[in-house]
Amino acid sequence: MRPGPDLAAIRQRRPLVHQITNYVVMNETANATLALGALPVMAHAIEEVEEMASVAGALVLNIGTLSEHWIEAMLLAAKAANGAGVPVVLDPVGAGATKLRTETAKRILAEAEITVVRGNAAEVATLAGRQAEIRGVESIGASDSGAELARAAASELGCVVAVTGPVDHVSDGDRVIAVANGHELLGTVTGTGCMASAITGCFLAVARDRPLEAAAEALVVFGLAGEDAAQGASGPGSFHVNLYDALYNLDSWKLDERARVDA
Amino acid sequence: MRPGPDLAAIRQRRPLVHQITNYVVMNETANATLALGALPVMAHAIEEVEEMASVAGALVLNIGTLSEHWIEAMLLAAKAANGAGVPVVLDPVGAGATKLRTETAKRILAEAEITVVRGNAAEVATLAGRQAEIRGVESIGASDSGAELARAAASELGCVVAVTGPVDHVSDGDRVIAVANGHELLGTVTGTGCMASAITGCFLAVARDRPLEAAAEALVVFGLAGEDAAQGASGPGSFHVNLYDALYNLDSWKLDERARVDA
Amino acid sequence: MRPGPDLAAIRQRRPLVHQITNYVVMNETANATLALGALPVMAHAIEEVEEMASVAGALVLNIGTLSEHWIEAMLLAAKAANGAGVPVVLDPVGAGATKLRTETAKRILAEAEITVVRGNAAEVATLAGRQAEIRGVESIGASDSGAELARAAASELGCVVAVTGPVDHVSDGDRVIAVANGHELLGTVTGTGCMASAITGCFLAVARDRPLEAAAEALVVFGLAGEDAAQGASGPGSFHVNLYDALYNLDSWKLDERARVDA
Repeated sequence: MRPGPDLAAIRQRRPLVHQITNYVVMNETANATLALGALPVMAHAIEEVEEMASVAGALVLNIGTLSEHWIEAMLLAAKAANGAGVPVVLDPVGAGATKLRTETAKRILAEAEITVVRGNAAEVATLAGRQAEIRGVESIGASDSGAELARAAASELGCVVAVTGPVDHVSDGDRVIAVANGHELLGTVTGTGCMASAITGCFLAVARDRPLEAAAEALVVFGLAGEDAAQGASGPGSFHVNLYDALYNLDSWKLDERARVDA
Repeated sequence: MRPGPDLAAIRQRRPLVHQITNYVVMNETANATLALGALPVMAHAIEEVEEMASVAGALVLNIGTLSEHWIEAMLLAAKAANGAGVPVVLDPVGAGATKLRTETAKRILAEAEITVVRGNAAEVATLAGRQAEIRGVESIGASDSGAELARAAASELGCVVAVTGPVDHVSDGDRVIAVANGHELLGTVTGTGCMASAITGCFLAVARDRPLEAAAEALVVFGLAGEDAAQGASGPGSFHVNLYDALYNLDSWKLDERARVDA
Repeated sequence: MRPGPDLAAIRQRRPLVHQITNYVVMNETANATLALGALPVMAHAIEEVEEMASVAGALVLNIGTLSEHWIEAMLLAAKAANGAGVPVVLDPVGAGATKLRTETAKRILAEAEITVVRGNAAEVATLAGRQAEIRGVESIGASDSGAELARAAASELGCVVAVTGPVDHVSDGDRVIAVANGHELLGTVTGTGCMASAITGCFLAVARDRPLEAAAEALVVFGLAGEDAAQGASGPGSFHVNLYDALYNLDSWKLDERARVDA
């Protein structure tokens, strides 16, 4: 794990991170990507997603607000990314809450090669066929611990899985990395999970041969930004603003020592 | 009226508030809902709106950016909510500005049972068949006073109607409650009316048998948050940020004494 | 050039600025329009765009997230605006990045009369048939200088062209106005180019017979707001918040002396 050098590489190379994401958080994930140092682009038209995805450094799919054409575009983009060797992140927002979301997430996993799935415990448990309770897009509970769930889901889905929560767990089905960085105010702003997925895409773009580490590094970096943002925040509004400042100001030389990781 | 205990109930029960709203404010109404203490979910696909609406604590429909599939989804969701006893808020953004918006708002009112309509004077006057002047989505004027308009519209539409402005008026066709809380900076940020509608949904979710009071309480609470947010604000940007902090930090024990209500 | 009196006119008349823009920045361009003093309205349904555009003070088209119905709506709105004498701004976001974007921008320019094109160097160079390099929606380079590019593109496209960058250049094919106001933090927030286009629409609404000056004044005003916003900003988040405060607080009496313009 080397979040510092990888963040420095993102800022130097400025990879293009193509995002097909939900209406609620588009501005937020674009700004998080930009504040970190990468270049976001949002494109969802069937006529252009293959062209955009195949030249990107990473593709991020987020099913937070679905409709028919968007599902088709996600599949086309994912296949184009696969063909071009571009890593793909899937954020299965609300899987378990409605049949459409559960089936769409499963369909994307079945029809395309996903590099990293990043979700909350209920979403990941749903995809891995385990017990979970979800209210809307919020995880209420899952029967497995985060570490077990990440490992089991990674084995089941055949990709890296990141389960985020008070402590995040990332697994490739074999190793499990626990990341304790973060702050409870992250749960008071909508789209912070989606931002974590976008940042996972940024790290994959510079470390595509190390997806387990890239996914864990992204959560370290986002968690540290959350810790910094909480300084002086008076609630969700000021915390949200501080979060972009914190991502922008993260000192890549200090990341490795600030990481709270158990691998 | 008891805004304090009802806010405490929202924070304790965390009701799911399903919102089918416009692209401009989705992030803002989700964050306002979350800052208040409820759980927002945005879902507009025809394939999932019935499933989501029927398990929600309230459904909020907002016609700020319409298109064909969205109208169909709103109707399906409203009927599913009606079937499940879930209260429904309608925010008729821009009714009176274009034929599409006026007709869509009327169609939703005709085909589904709406619990509360929340709009500005021109929007409500349009729906109640009265004189009004609107520019885009901004009310320029209406011939009736707020109190008369709210009462007449509630009688005409057969539901609770909340007319917001410098002073808000809420009526069930019989009683009229005037709410004087608020701040002029609310008019400088887009989507504050939409946030008021989302928060109306939050209060209905915990007080579905008292829709008149729930709608008035929501405006007291949102107005108080506006008053708090204005403290130290330098303009619309900082006021907007402060608004989420203020919603999050509202002391439910002090709401009843801070309410400026004339019932 | 008289940015001060024209800003005062915007704040007094409050023109309606109809925007058909991308999902990523809708909230941001609406809030920038409102903070400046004009009234934004977002409407994209084929059933209502002609009605809305023909009563607006200006129409702003932005191709940042395209799909089939939106392209059709943009063309209908632009033709209605043309018929009603309403000025039209085109922001060709990502022209040069995908065939869909390049062709859509060219199609709008061919089928409707555009008053002002506002884009970065790579986007404008693409439309003018010149060499450019773009990554996603970010301009990486163009072979011409800004001044040459603006003049050549204005001649080629038959309208006013504003090329924004560290120094902005605005031309009608004959005169070139250079605007040096601005701040590098503008490049760290997504949608600041889109905001500049929305503000161009605001100025055109009060100065439709002086499109070259209106476009340059908009960039002076937005650049000055950027300069003010940078005061006390700690990064992209706080800068973004300050930007709305700055637009709202701009002193129209001091604009003319603060403008850094070379005409």
